[in-house]
Amino acid sequence: MSEVIATYMVHDSKGNHEKKAEGIALGLTVGTWTDLPLLEQEQLKKHKGRVLSVEELEQRGKVNNYFGEKTFRSIIKIAYPAFNFSADLPAILTTVFGKLSLDGAIKLLDLELTGELRSSFPGPRYGIKGIREKLDVFGRPLVMSIFKGVIGRDLSYLKSQLSAQAQGGVDLVKDDEILFENDQTPFLDRIIQGKEVLRQSYEETGKRTLYAVNLTGSTFGLADKARMAAEAGADALLFNVFSYGLDVLQSLRELEDAPLPIMAHPAFSGSFTASEFYGVSHPLLLGKLVRYAGADLSLFPSPYGNVALDRNISIELACQLTKEEEQWKTAFPVPSAGIHPGMVPHLMEDFGKDCVINAGGGVHGHPDGAAGGGKAFRQAVEASLNGINLEDAAKEHQELRKALDLWGGVPERL
Amino acid sequence: MSEVIATYMVHDSKGNHEKKAEGIALGLTVGTWTDLPLLEQEQLKKHKGRVLSVEELEQRGKVNNYFGEKTFRSIIKIAYPAFNFSADLPAILTTVFGKLSLDGAIKLLDLELTGELRSSFPGPRYGIKGIREKLDVFGRPLVMSIFKGVIGRDLSYLKSQLSAQAQGGVDLVKDDEILFENDQTPFLDRIIQGKEVLRQSYEETGKRTLYAVNLTGSTFGLADKARMAAEAGADALLFNVFSYGLDVLQSLRELEDAPLPIMAHPAFSGSFTASEFYGVSHPLLLGKLVRYAGADLSLFPSPYGNVALDRNISIELACQLTKEEEQWKTAFPVPSAGIHPGMVPHLMEDFGKDCVINAGGGVHGHPDGAAGGGKAFRQAVEASLNGINLEDAAKEHQELRKALDLWGGVPERL
Repeated sequence: MSEVIATYMVHDSKGNHEKKAEGIALGLTVGTWTDLPLLEQEQLKKHKGRVLSVEELEQRGKVNNYFGEKTFRSIIKIAYPAFNFSADLPAILTTVFGKLSLDGAIKLLDLELTGELRSSFPGPRYGIKGIREKLDVFGRPLVMSIFKGVIGRDLSYLKSQLSAQAQGGVDLVKDDEILFENDQTPFLDRIIQGKEVLRQSYEETGKRTLYAVNLTGSTFGLADKARMAAEAGADALLFNVFSYGLDVLQSLRELEDAPLPIMAHPAFSGSFTASEFYGVSHPLLLGKLVRYAGADLSLFPSPYGNVALDRNISIELACQLTKEEEQWKTAFPVPSAGIHPGMVPHLMEDFGKDCVINAGGGVHGHPDGAAGGGKAFRQAVEASLNGINLEDAAKEHQELRKALDLWGGVPERL
Repeated sequence: MSEVIATYMVHDSKGNHEKKAEGIALGLTVGTWTDLPLLEQEQLKKHKGRVLSVEELEQRGKVNNYFGEKTFRSIIKIAYPAFNFSADLPAILTTVFGKLSLDGAIKLLDLELTGELRSSFPGPRYGIKGIREKLDVFGRPLVMSIFKGVIGRDLSYLKSQLSAQAQGGVDLVKDDEILFENDQTPFLDRIIQGKEVLRQSYEETGKRTLYAVNLTGSTFGLADKARMAAEAGADALLFNVFSYGLDVLQSLRELEDAPLPIMAHPAFSGSFTASEFYGVSHPLLLGKLVRYAGADLSLFPSPYGNVALDRNISIELACQLTKEEEQWKTAFPVPSAGIHPGMVPHLMEDFGKDCVINAGGGVHGHPDGAAGGGKAFRQAVEASLNGINLEDAAKEHQELRKALDLWGGVPERL
């Protein structure tokens, strides 16, 4: 029998979380139980939620202070039979965290799908292996850069930025997530002309670069737009999944006539993940669910840089993307935000070779421009792979030298 | 010129929120400004975000304790030019709270759309007036009840529940939001057989009741399913908008060939709204945006009952649904969760006549069953309309008497 096992963190002043857990397991499935006639119990048995465990945690002074009272904390696990819902994420989220998300200080930490249910979620179409094959790059982290300051600019501006980024040897370039359909740089033109820029760059350098174009607009128009992108020869789609919905990502992944890699952007996801008491955990939302729904790459704040995520959480998040699962391909973790070349050794230590190192300002702000920025990142990756510290590598590589001078070397761990 | 004006609540230890606000206004639009050549400034001027105000708030001891340091608090207003994004909610949310949602303790309190942009959002198709006309009920709050414990049950069970609810004189009945596509009570059968039950009840009682069926399944299949529902004669759709996405609601609203009233359910919305530091405010998410996107009714936790929302917040939320706007029809506020007839006077005081009083257990748990429960609510509404207190009304109405005896009378205000 398939189930969804949900793990929650509960905070409240009442304690007795065993009772609370029983209330949830019944309330979100068959409603009541002990009052039912035996015959009905027999009929409804396969629909009944089950409490798997209730683990009480120590109280924390900070939390008690915040809530202004003694606050009990526990981790609760409940199993929901898959008989109760259709095999889609909106149904699962509504069941396990619909009404419950409104019911006090409770956070959804994890979901585990068992049995047949797993096959309803496609996972990445290409995954880490497929993306590497497209690029013919193996055994090292990929390097990605982002268009900068493109709002209000025309196509020639974007093309020169794209060209400079590709010249620096980055593997991927993504649109700015806040670039939408507009007259100056329309979606199709970006794809077609971007492709031409990257073709020329490939002819000159022999290095392939993929460009992820931002898929935007109204939800019911996205499928046609994705098909149009595929026909025009797009390399990949960037998608603001949390401004749309996880199931929209899955619906795009499942389009057989638009088989493009999908890069999930975390825009708006902080609304769900940031609180320690409410919402959904980072590893579940930006790791597991994004992978199940079908993203090939998932961006998230790195433990370094200007928008930092706790190191343990970001490593757990990445692990949800990269751990081996029979059902699903692995997806690339893309630690992002405020990354400069000095952070590369930490990023590789934290995320290994199977990650994408992603920078905007850290590429474009380089003294030699975006091309120099890309080179500095590639040099930092190469050095770290070979166990050479960056200062030593910088003696041989002027782009890396300039980057370290500008942004500093390897930062102290917090 | 159209703009979106976003209001944020910011908490941080650094202060200098004027500088922070400037950083946001530039960072989420043109990127940089003072470094740009004058000619480029001229070109990009119409794309530049503007700080409208920064209002410093008093520090709060509880908040300082929680963050473990002196924490500055302020309300920031920033205007984003509509030139920068397409006229859809995913683009707006990505712009004003995309990356920013990941950037520390910041909550999106409000969005104000100005100018032309407003016409891109449809608002309710029917609204309060249209729903009242369908029911031929004016001048009093509507009463709604909810199917209970329907998972694992068959159609005959649902039909007898529906019949009992209609016999009690409720105006609306909604599916349980956790009832999905299933073999025992398929979507189309619920519509067709539910319609027949309500037709019979109308013939007997002369009272019309509308049934909102839960629209579920994968996102790209929803339009066809909504059309099917319309053809089968459905009265209204229930929709778990936050498990899907606000723009999916809007896309459903805009289907010209499935012109059904839409009831927005708040399942999963607590993930966004519950924290005081992060996410999106209740009035914005469950009030304003749900209305703009096109819901005719919006459910939310009432200030009373088991899942309570702060009274001022819930009144502000309702106000976002009901205030007169040239562009949009008004939508029904539906305060919900743990409602019993004794709460009716408070609900009418808080939300006026233009609301829907919604109960599950408070209808089905009545000693005379769902029919008695519905009658007790109607009696409580009638009494409150006429300024009669419930205890006096209960002398004339045995269903109300039994309800007050079971659940208590008018609760103390908190």
